[in-house]
Amino acid sequence: MTKTNYDNAVIEQGNLKYEGKAKQVYLTNQPDILWIHYLDQATALNGKVKETIIGKGEINSKISHLLFTYLEKHGVAQHYLKTVSQTDELVQALQMIPIEVVSRNFAAGHFVSHFAVPNQMPLHPVVQEFYYKSDALDDPFINDSQILALGFASPDELAVLRQQAQIINDLLGQLFEQVGIRLVDFKLEFGRNTAGTIILADELSPDNMRLIDQQTGHSLDKDVFRQHTGDVTVGYREVLRRLEQVI
Amino acid sequence: MTKTNYDNAVIEQGNLKYEGKAKQVYLTNQPDILWIHYLDQATALNGKVKETIIGKGEINSKISHLLFTYLEKHGVAQHYLKTVSQTDELVQALQMIPIEVVSRNFAAGHFVSHFAVPNQMPLHPVVQEFYYKSDALDDPFINDSQILALGFASPDELAVLRQQAQIINDLLGQLFEQVGIRLVDFKLEFGRNTAGTIILADELSPDNMRLIDQQTGHSLDKDVFRQHTGDVTVGYREVLRRLEQVI
Ligand SMILES: Nc1ncnc2c1ncn2[C@@H]1O[C@H](COP(=O)(O)OP(=O)(O)O)[C@@H](O)[C@H]1O
Ligand SMILES: Nc1ncnc2c1ncn2[C@@H]1O[C@H](COP(=O)(O)OP(=O)(O)O)[C@@H](O)[C@H]1O
Ligand SMILES: [Mg+2]
Ligand SMILES: [Mg+2]
Repeated sequence: MTKTNYDNAVIEQGNLKYEGKAKQVYLTNQPDILWIHYLDQATALNGKVKETIIGKGEINSKISHLLFTYLEKHGVAQHYLKTVSQTDELVQALQMIPIEVVSRNFAAGHFVSHFAVPNQMPLHPVVQEFYYKSDALDDPFINDSQILALGFASPDELAVLRQQAQIINDLLGQLFEQVGIRLVDFKLEFGRNTAGTIILADELSPDNMRLIDQQTGHSLDKDVFRQHTGDVTVGYREVLRRLEQVI
Repeated sequence: MTKTNYDNAVIEQGNLKYEGKAKQVYLTNQPDILWIHYLDQATALNGKVKETIIGKGEINSKISHLLFTYLEKHGVAQHYLKTVSQTDELVQALQMIPIEVVSRNFAAGHFVSHFAVPNQMPLHPVVQEFYYKSDALDDPFINDSQILALGFASPDELAVLRQQAQIINDLLGQLFEQVGIRLVDFKLEFGRNTAGTIILADELSPDNMRLIDQQTGHSLDKDVFRQHTGDVTVGYREVLRRLEQVI
């Protein structure tokens, strides 16, 4: 499918704008709309490990769509516009802020190895981290004054990123709690629309979250891939199944 | 010398409390006073490279004493009490906050390699960074919410660290400017006294600063040792000579 209707207009898929690690981003005949295609691809170690995983694109597209819809219903400005096919969606075209915003409710991954704390230690207050999104530099951890000195965002924008991440963490935490899943940590990306408003963008899927089944303690996220402990889509499918029951 | 007078009392050097990479810290017969001995030792890569440098202890003790005296005169609460000998001094015993506070006026060192920016690029606003002081963990870069979640300092204390670092940066910048030296970056450590007041501690020497001669562009600091470009004490002596003219 290379055409779809949106807002009484025909939207045509245009040239590939960017091919990332998990998605392809296409231009459309409308400058403010992008066409995103989810790939059946998983990467680890910032792209150094790459593998095809049949069905992952479709599951992530569905989970992301559900979560963005849920967040929008609760007042979060976000970029998702419309599902085009099982792997494709339309989103608002944004000027991306090159910062990954990580929220951590429990210690895991890098946080555990960097600070030698027990895995799953509860974190109070919730830890928020910024990373400079740059494959060439390996997404370095960055702080506010560095972001300001390097001109990646303004002080006001940083305050919005922090505040939005907190609101989204609260909303997602409640949602996953309802379906017996612990939201350990997750990563967000934001962009600016033409008015300069900060909008939640990219995707929200188990590729960018750590989710643990509260009953079994099993990972339902990309850690399964990172640690080679089984078929990652089993967990992803379970997350989708449970979310579909409540959203 | 193992005894000295201070504040109408005899202070006796007691047991070694801690041997660090650049200094030995001794207890005294007074619980609120420590006796610090500066070593003729330089380390790089967090202690992995170590070398004896005759005279460095004495120069650093003198520079540190001058700078702390200057800062105190300008209202900064600091720990230095008295010089006992060319390498030894008395300081207020503090409960150290395990955070290194770095201020950067120009890009250098890690900042350049992490963010691929030009060496000596001016940084506006001044970059402030916190590192968790832990040899075992290699002094990891840390942000506010991580510090709070790990309990290393309170929100109020973080605000004081940031504010003090800024005041000290302004004062030191002006001072070094007067003697033709660019203050590129530097590291501070702070502790709490028994009343909970945050006090500037440790040392202030070219071991913990990047200083560049504005005329020649030469490093007058530990980069000379890190990069094996000559006798580090030549630059240190030059810094001391110039500071003695103005303090
Ligand atoms: N609404 C949007 N407008 C513009 N770019 C976006 C939007 N949402 C996401 N992006 C960007 O599109 C790319 C998505 O592809 P992905 O495979 O995730 O890339 P990457 O490997 O860079 O993370 C990312 O670079 C992301 O920042
Ligand atoms: N006023 C003080 N009270 C207590 N400890 C201090 C004070 N000033 C500095 N220290 C600590 O004493 C030690 C000084 O020795 P140093 O060789 O610099 O150690 P390190 O290798 O740990 O940096 C440091 O650990 C420093 O934090
Ligand atoms: Mg991505
Ligand atoms: Mg030290």
